[in-house]
Amino acid sequence: MKAFMDKDFLLTTETARKLFFEYAEDCPIIDYHNHLPAKDIYERRRYDNLTQVWLEADHYKWRCMRVCGVAEEYVTGKADDYAKFAEFARIMPKLIGSPVYHWAHLELQRYFGIYTPLSEKTAKEIWDKTCEILQSEGFDAVSLLDKAQAKILCTTDDPADDLAWHQKLAAEYEAGKVPFRTLPSFRPDRFLNIDQTENWDRALAQLSERYGIAIDSWEGLTSALKASLDFFCSVGCKVTDHGFLHFRYVEGDHAAVMAKALEGVTLTEEEIAVYQGGLLRFLASEYEARGLAMQLHLGPIRNNSPKVWKAFGADGGGDSIGEATDPFKLSALLGGLEGEGHLPKTILYNLNPNDSAMMATMAANFAAGTEADGSDSGKVQYGAAWWLLDHIRGMQDQIDQLMETGQISGSVGMLTDSRSFTSFVRHEYYRRILCDKLGYLVESGQYPGDEDSLEALGQMVEDICWKNAVNYFGFEF
Amino acid sequence: MKAFMDKDFLLTTETARKLFFEYAEDCPIIDYHNHLPAKDIYERRRYDNLTQVWLEADHYKWRCMRVCGVAEEYVTGKADDYAKFAEFARIMPKLIGSPVYHWAHLELQRYFGIYTPLSEKTAKEIWDKTCEILQSEGFDAVSLLDKAQAKILCTTDDPADDLAWHQKLAAEYEAGKVPFRTLPSFRPDRFLNIDQTENWDRALAQLSERYGIAIDSWEGLTSALKASLDFFCSVGCKVTDHGFLHFRYVEGDHAAVMAKALEGVTLTEEEIAVYQGGLLRFLASEYEARGLAMQLHLGPIRNNSPKVWKAFGADGGGDSIGEATDPFKLSALLGGLEGEGHLPKTILYNLNPNDSAMMATMAANFAAGTEADGSDSGKVQYGAAWWLLDHIRGMQDQIDQLMETGQISGSVGMLTDSRSFTSFVRHEYYRRILCDKLGYLVESGQYPGDEDSLEALGQMVEDICWKNAVNYFGFEF
Amino acid sequence: MKAFMDKDFLLTTETARKLFFEYAEDCPIIDYHNHLPAKDIYERRRYDNLTQVWLEADHYKWRCMRVCGVAEEYVTGKADDYAKFAEFARIMPKLIGSPVYHWAHLELQRYFGIYTPLSEKTAKEIWDKTCEILQSEGFDAVSLLDKAQAKILCTTDDPADDLAWHQKLAAEYEAGKVPFRTLPSFRPDRFLNIDQTENWDRALAQLSERYGIAIDSWEGLTSALKASLDFFCSVGCKVTDHGFLHFRYVEGDHAAVMAKALEGVTLTEEEIAVYQGGLLRFLASEYEARGLAMQLHLGPIRNNSPKVWKAFGADGGGDSIGEATDPFKLSALLGGLEGEGHLPKTILYNLNPNDSAMMATMAANFAAGTEADGSDSGKVQYGAAWWLLDHIRGMQDQIDQLMETGQISGSVGMLTDSRSFTSFVRHEYYRRILCDKLGYLVESGQYPGDEDSLEALGQMVEDICWKNAVNYFGFEF
Repeated sequence: MKAFMDKDFLLTTETARKLFFEYAEDCPIIDYHNHLPAKDIYERRRYDNLTQVWLEADHYKWRCMRVCGVAEEYVTGKADDYAKFAEFARIMPKLIGSPVYHWAHLELQRYFGIYTPLSEKTAKEIWDKTCEILQSEGFDAVSLLDKAQAKILCTTDDPADDLAWHQKLAAEYEAGKVPFRTLPSFRPDRFLNIDQTENWDRALAQLSERYGIAIDSWEGLTSALKASLDFFCSVGCKVTDHGFLHFRYVEGDHAAVMAKALEGVTLTEEEIAVYQGGLLRFLASEYEARGLAMQLHLGPIRNNSPKVWKAFGADGGGDSIGEATDPFKLSALLGGLEGEGHLPKTILYNLNPNDSAMMATMAANFAAGTEADGSDSGKVQYGAAWWLLDHIRGMQDQIDQLMETGQISGSVGMLTDSRSFTSFVRHEYYRRILCDKLGYLVESGQYPGDEDSLEALGQMVEDICWKNAVNYFGFEF
Repeated sequence: MKAFMDKDFLLTTETARKLFFEYAEDCPIIDYHNHLPAKDIYERRRYDNLTQVWLEADHYKWRCMRVCGVAEEYVTGKADDYAKFAEFARIMPKLIGSPVYHWAHLELQRYFGIYTPLSEKTAKEIWDKTCEILQSEGFDAVSLLDKAQAKILCTTDDPADDLAWHQKLAAEYEAGKVPFRTLPSFRPDRFLNIDQTENWDRALAQLSERYGIAIDSWEGLTSALKASLDFFCSVGCKVTDHGFLHFRYVEGDHAAVMAKALEGVTLTEEEIAVYQGGLLRFLASEYEARGLAMQLHLGPIRNNSPKVWKAFGADGGGDSIGEATDPFKLSALLGGLEGEGHLPKTILYNLNPNDSAMMATMAANFAAGTEADGSDSGKVQYGAAWWLLDHIRGMQDQIDQLMETGQISGSVGMLTDSRSFTSFVRHEYYRRILCDKLGYLVESGQYPGDEDSLEALGQMVEDICWKNAVNYFGFEF
Repeated sequence: MKAFMDKDFLLTTETARKLFFEYAEDCPIIDYHNHLPAKDIYERRRYDNLTQVWLEADHYKWRCMRVCGVAEEYVTGKADDYAKFAEFARIMPKLIGSPVYHWAHLELQRYFGIYTPLSEKTAKEIWDKTCEILQSEGFDAVSLLDKAQAKILCTTDDPADDLAWHQKLAAEYEAGKVPFRTLPSFRPDRFLNIDQTENWDRALAQLSERYGIAIDSWEGLTSALKASLDFFCSVGCKVTDHGFLHFRYVEGDHAAVMAKALEGVTLTEEEIAVYQGGLLRFLASEYEARGLAMQLHLGPIRNNSPKVWKAFGADGGGDSIGEATDPFKLSALLGGLEGEGHLPKTILYNLNPNDSAMMATMAANFAAGTEADGSDSGKVQYGAAWWLLDHIRGMQDQIDQLMETGQISGSVGMLTDSRSFTSFVRHEYYRRILCDKLGYLVESGQYPGDEDSLEALGQMVEDICWKNAVNYFGFEF
């Protein structure tokens, strides 16, 4: 029996351990997609206890608690911090086989030096110890990120955002006061979701006000979005992000559809698709012109539970795996953009596992990029296992798909999608799984195990862990 | 090389063996979904030979025989019992890797003490020995179920059924003459399938006659179904069941659609969806009011082969895996019911493996139930691997899905879906797979292996094997 | 650590090795589906270098190169042969975990006796050595196929083809001058794709001219196709093939739709489905009448990348995994044909992995065939892992699906889908994977390991490797 989550956790062969310890373990972290609040970073937010760190904003953990029958009062409700933590500790052993189980224990180990399994029995002891440690020096938001060796963080931001905290953080970075860059990401979902009338109207109004551009037409909308993109770029933005419940793509007169919507006409499914397709293609071209990468997150179904909605509202955890993506629509978008020379760097993420093989192979169609000399290879990528697929089998599948029908050596690797300052152990989790898979291929005679080959494989691990991301997104540091 | 199907079958680690032998092996069986005839139980049916036990009603085995080229005469036709058995024995070695191969041999071991692999060569010897044993005491239907430690059996019954055999069996149970409860399950498929006009008309007529309620309107239909539900409950019903080829759900005027159908108008797809959606939602609310659990079996495609249909008719084995389920429709049903406070206990089963992750995560959205204190946790469950997924990979996947995105400790575990009195070894098969997975997680350092943790894991195994089902469905015994 | 791709490659148990070396390794190859040019065989084409063998026509390898960022010039462009090879060698180590990595090294081993891993460093040495070997005797097209023990080759041919090369090869085979049969396969895709107007018109014109039958109606089209089928049969054709991006099937007045198309009217989706469904059903009946097998390849999406299209045109490698198949349409076709007694031998192949379980079980519905005595068992088969699924996991999944819900002993096994004369190692790859799986089942106690059982299992391996294919397709040699 292997010891519980010891240093060889998930590393089952000599070669896997060699790759992890000699190459992966100490790589810096380039976290190109997360949901951390820039304000908390700038303010060096401190935490009284683990509940604040773990349970305040992390819907992954809320979901686990609810699924184990914890009453909402102890999830997102008014119970006090210890009571919430005690409930989380109590259900922890039920989470056998869950990535949340592994992440929580990796966080206890890496940030607090605690190797005791969390349970009802150990809750108080672990609470006391972590409270004490959190009071000490080096446990504010910036220090936590620094401990994880974070060098680049890309948060998720609305086009109407003023990015004030990012600007302050940029100044501090230049002044050497924070050891990592915090960059905004452009996420225009509200502008694409024309069928969520109220949100869409509000988004238009806010963007219009922010940039002083009247948004009473397609022209106005695209002008204002361009202004916002320019501003985001001036604050260091390298990445954009989009989430779709239904990935629609129909070519048509998007400006006319928008005009109808502005008049308050309810749109048909077809019209929504024309508008979304047109706006996404416009945005993609603008991203390409600015060297920005486009992330497409496809396949969730949201706000399923009225109970959770009532308790918390959107993004409260009543979300799950939705529909698979139509490959013909995805191809129409990417092929259309490539054909006119405006395909940006693109990363495809699926939440429905039925899309894995389709997306991995679709990305590979466009991986060669659009430069004649192949210099922009890996242009379209199949992204890391996301959200409800972000478990061992899910990560293994993403790695396998890349190797089977594409290539893994150019992958930009892992991101956290994090809503918590200690969740950077997810990079370690991914790296262990990656090294274990590569090690297995060597040990089983499927790949050469001579010294040169292992050295090259080690370099490949470093590339995937961080160097590819730096090159792909064009980060400076 | 491990010995063929010995006591450690499918148990690959020490911890797996410990969990199975110390906790799982002797658990009673709560078989909350099967297709056994209550009449055969009441009459203590006896069997002359294995063909009667195995091949009389089990379409799993018919399918295996046909796929190996056995002529229909020896499958469901007029060949004599030994000739049929000989054909089944002959093809057995071809079924390498099939769950039917394992089940047949587990049945030979557990009921007859036979450890010889079944084949053309051993057919006669095994036939003779099993014939002899079947003549002896303790091999009638009740004894076979008792040998398996069955404590609760839920059969599958039509709303128009008079449940006479269930009532007789209930009296015998109360009198201590049978050692298990045999409870009816309410399966109103005929009433939902409004597009199968002839069957639907007949179903309405039979229910009308049974309860003396005219069914000439939605009102009449729902009144009669309520009367039937009350009657089912009075005979101990705790579970309902539904099978859908197409899971449709559209909100609309279902009473008007039904009126059209009663007038003989052919319905559109949309109208069928309105009727089915309305009736299912009505039924679900009634289930909730009575504390009944709702099972949804989604994704088969039936009667594909005209040859099999001609030979046998419906449920003859020409059925297979059909379409994936629309998550938005499933969410609309469950969310709609939860929103109005009428969500019953619900178990989702998929036949198309592409639904596994979607359904597991959809169930988790509603797992917290509707009580503020979390007391009805696990309300919506992702059910055990079903029918054509009921093999090792399929069971492992269901277990993995639960652990990765939900939790397994609250699962109601396995059922047989059985059409044969010896098929209860499927519970053992599941338990071995479950214990092997949990054992693997411990042995690979993914879960603590200290004594306390193992003891807690053992309790979890017992919960999944039977205690959760008792609590969830509210069985008394 | 196992040695790199040594004789035990992919064989992880004693039993696996026994099955492979004693039964599988020396079986002849019946390659019932490939894309080899009969002309090259007849002309005993010789190769100057590995680029001609490997990179001239193999879009699998092009895809790998592009995905690694190799500029098109070195893929399908004007770079010289060595420069292309050098690029392929350079990216080889990046292809860790890819089947192309394994195939390339198996080809180096089996044809050239080279056991050195291919990389930038070894490119020149391997180039020189293979160039030298290719100049020697025994490395023309016929010899390469003979080295692989190929006994039957089925190429892929258009109904308008004159099959001149096949006729010459048939004469040579009869005269004992080539040691294998090269048979044409009937692939009428151009005639089914009525929506690709230009190609369809050209196809009709060519077929009309070839057979001197006016194609100005459904009548004319079907007459000409029948004439072509008769001609193909006279040249030894046993197999037909079809590829669909969208598998459509609607019953209706296909002759009327065709009349509209001939008048230049643009067809609706529904009309295309009526035409394709009608023509496919007509063809299937004709196949059945002639004892031909029908292959259905479903699920690609083609020509996604305008860049690749511009560089190369169709089948250039910008193709990937498309949509899943509608089981109800597939059932309508197969059930319709079975019902009227015209179901031909049929093999279902999926490119979208989401179809695997559906197709495996759908095939099993019809596996029993239509003869009362079961003599045509395995009539409908679930085919080998295809194209972008043709990797270890994909092959394992196909094998698992067959075993779990059908039976593997009657499978017609592997084919190459090859566009290269050395790619016959794919049969070895499959055989190793098959033997490893069967060996695992024995070694883990899931199947008996006594001498008789192993001998029977060895026979099963031989059946799957080649004998089943000979019997199923009715090849003579």
